[in-house]
Amino acid sequence: MPTALVPEPSHRVTIDLGVRSYPIDVGTGLLGNASTWAATPPAAAALIVTNATVAALFGDRLTGMLRARYKNVHTVMLPDGEEHKDWQTLNLIFDALLRHGCDRRTVIFALGGGVVGDMAGFAAASYMRGVPFVQVPTTLLAQVDSSVGGKTAINHPLGKNMIGAFYQPKQVICDLDTLQTLPPRELSAGLAEVIKYGPIHDLEFLAWIEANIDALMAREPAMLSRAVVRSCEIKAWVVGQDEREAGLRAILNFGHTFGHAIEAGMGYGQWLHGEAVGCGMVMATRLSQRLGGVDSAFADRLTELICRAGLPVKAPQLGADRYLELMRVDKKAEAGELKFVLIDRPGHATVRGAPDSLVREVIEQCCR
Amino acid sequence: MPTALVPEPSHRVTIDLGVRSYPIDVGTGLLGNASTWAATPPAAAALIVTNATVAALFGDRLTGMLRARYKNVHTVMLPDGEEHKDWQTLNLIFDALLRHGCDRRTVIFALGGGVVGDMAGFAAASYMRGVPFVQVPTTLLAQVDSSVGGKTAINHPLGKNMIGAFYQPKQVICDLDTLQTLPPRELSAGLAEVIKYGPIHDLEFLAWIEANIDALMAREPAMLSRAVVRSCEIKAWVVGQDEREAGLRAILNFGHTFGHAIEAGMGYGQWLHGEAVGCGMVMATRLSQRLGGVDSAFADRLTELICRAGLPVKAPQLGADRYLELMRVDKKAEAGELKFVLIDRPGHATVRGAPDSLVREVIEQCCR
Repeated sequence: MPTALVPEPSHRVTIDLGVRSYPIDVGTGLLGNASTWAATPPAAAALIVTNATVAALFGDRLTGMLRARYKNVHTVMLPDGEEHKDWQTLNLIFDALLRHGCDRRTVIFALGGGVVGDMAGFAAASYMRGVPFVQVPTTLLAQVDSSVGGKTAINHPLGKNMIGAFYQPKQVICDLDTLQTLPPRELSAGLAEVIKYGPIHDLEFLAWIEANIDALMAREPAMLSRAVVRSCEIKAWVVGQDEREAGLRAILNFGHTFGHAIEAGMGYGQWLHGEAVGCGMVMATRLSQRLGGVDSAFADRLTELICRAGLPVKAPQLGADRYLELMRVDKKAEAGELKFVLIDRPGHATVRGAPDSLVREVIEQCCR
Repeated sequence: MPTALVPEPSHRVTIDLGVRSYPIDVGTGLLGNASTWAATPPAAAALIVTNATVAALFGDRLTGMLRARYKNVHTVMLPDGEEHKDWQTLNLIFDALLRHGCDRRTVIFALGGGVVGDMAGFAAASYMRGVPFVQVPTTLLAQVDSSVGGKTAINHPLGKNMIGAFYQPKQVICDLDTLQTLPPRELSAGLAEVIKYGPIHDLEFLAWIEANIDALMAREPAMLSRAVVRSCEIKAWVVGQDEREAGLRAILNFGHTFGHAIEAGMGYGQWLHGEAVGCGMVMATRLSQRLGGVDSAFADRLTELICRAGLPVKAPQLGADRYLELMRVDKKAEAGELKFVLIDRPGHATVRGAPDSLVREVIEQCCR
């Protein structure tokens, strides 16, 4: 849906990782602006990784911009959806790179949402042991979370994101215009990851989201800009301190342990990742409440916000045993013990274990 | 063949890469010595990656040592040979890790030659975005080259080692005893990578190899020790300066551009990697000679040494067009131009292009 709204000025957030530092540019009209692409890595060839839906909307625009900078611009289309985030799909990227004779300077551009970014990023990490890549996220979820911080992965039948790499992009370009054409379910899924930053780190931001949730749902560019910029700032702060998730970074997985169980239990692609995280945050908050980290008013307040963002707050009935089984393959688990990201006080999160009995109570409470 | 030779004292070479530094221990009797394993990373579980041939010789000994240190010790067997260095085989490692519920502290031990090390290393780099691993190389080639320096990869039908990662082990354990049972072809293949270090960096070492090639072929432990230690020292020096092959490190690929073409052209597994590198060094030296880097006496001398090491010095008749086609997918190629590691003066190598006409002459000369 085209908008006649006033363009938002661009903002730049920097991920500070020494020689691997890179900028995140957030603004409107970025895709079609030559200056956006003026500093991408030099090479003879570029490969755009995308899917048919996104390519129809933005493929020509990006290809046109890159043609001015790279002698050869190739495109590979991936099937859409989390259920295709596997080796077979990843290999489509390697096939394209090798078929086109791409050398190890070739720049990979990930144009799309989290699935495209995760796979293009892991392909970039692995092709010839590493080629440069640029994230061009076109979903809210990818702009506020998955395109930033260098986590790349594919799924294994026995677990989500089990095979991947920490591999930082050279640049992230968040064109807010791309959010105007996003299906409503995807907008809500992205809002889950925006909301996440509040309870774990920034209560002021949480209050701002609550005050502006309707304007965010209406996709007002100024509101989307603030949401994306603040989310990226918080993520940059966390990743700058703990790039490889030795500790702190795990708090960004608030809601993800329950969420991954929902995604896997329902079959990848049934629930969107952000939907599962939204419901997972409700469950993690209820577990935090049982452990004394938050009171019922805070848990109710967060549940209401998640609901107003168009996200499910009732968990699917997989049965407590199945939930526990699915959660045991979580990457945070250690020697078989489950670990959860829990709110230990409003605005602050920690990683800790929890008794199975409490986890079962929460599952029953949230499945009702 | 059991030996009653005097044990060699252990030597330690350090790869100096800041926080990613690690030791290479070289000596006899290391596998069965508890002190060898006293500093491997702590964890609840260890996974030994090996193949049936190596497991029959050393599997029980390693398992026994690791049982004293890890609560759970699992083993996964890979099919043997370069032709199995693919995704399907790699996935056997991921399947085992997930089936055993291995968390991200799990330590992977690569017990075997280059294929085992490359795959175990890439699996370690990718499982849960990185778990610690220890190289226990049991072939000469792996001890002097592939287990050291963090290059890991699998093959793609369109090119060798095209998909992988730079990922350093925590420790490398080179037990020279394992070389006593090595098939003669594998010993020769390893000697190719030992010889390599001479013409590119150390003429004194080259002279020492020439003087002791018969003792090396007879597997005298003191000679093997010197060969492995000096090879690792040179590799450590190169990798310490250029971990990710931005420049200098490429000289370690002397003979590998022609060698990869031979391996791919004959079908992976027909020629051993080291055999192809041996013949590839003859070809690269002849190309160096045509470009004025070495004289015919030096080229003849190196060819004779490679021959005395039991390696082929005559290239297979694939036809010059096929050689050129196969070499264009080499990782050193840039924008379609072939790059070779060539000797620009005895004891010194450089990466450069060469006219197709000269490359064709060399192919014809070496296939005769």
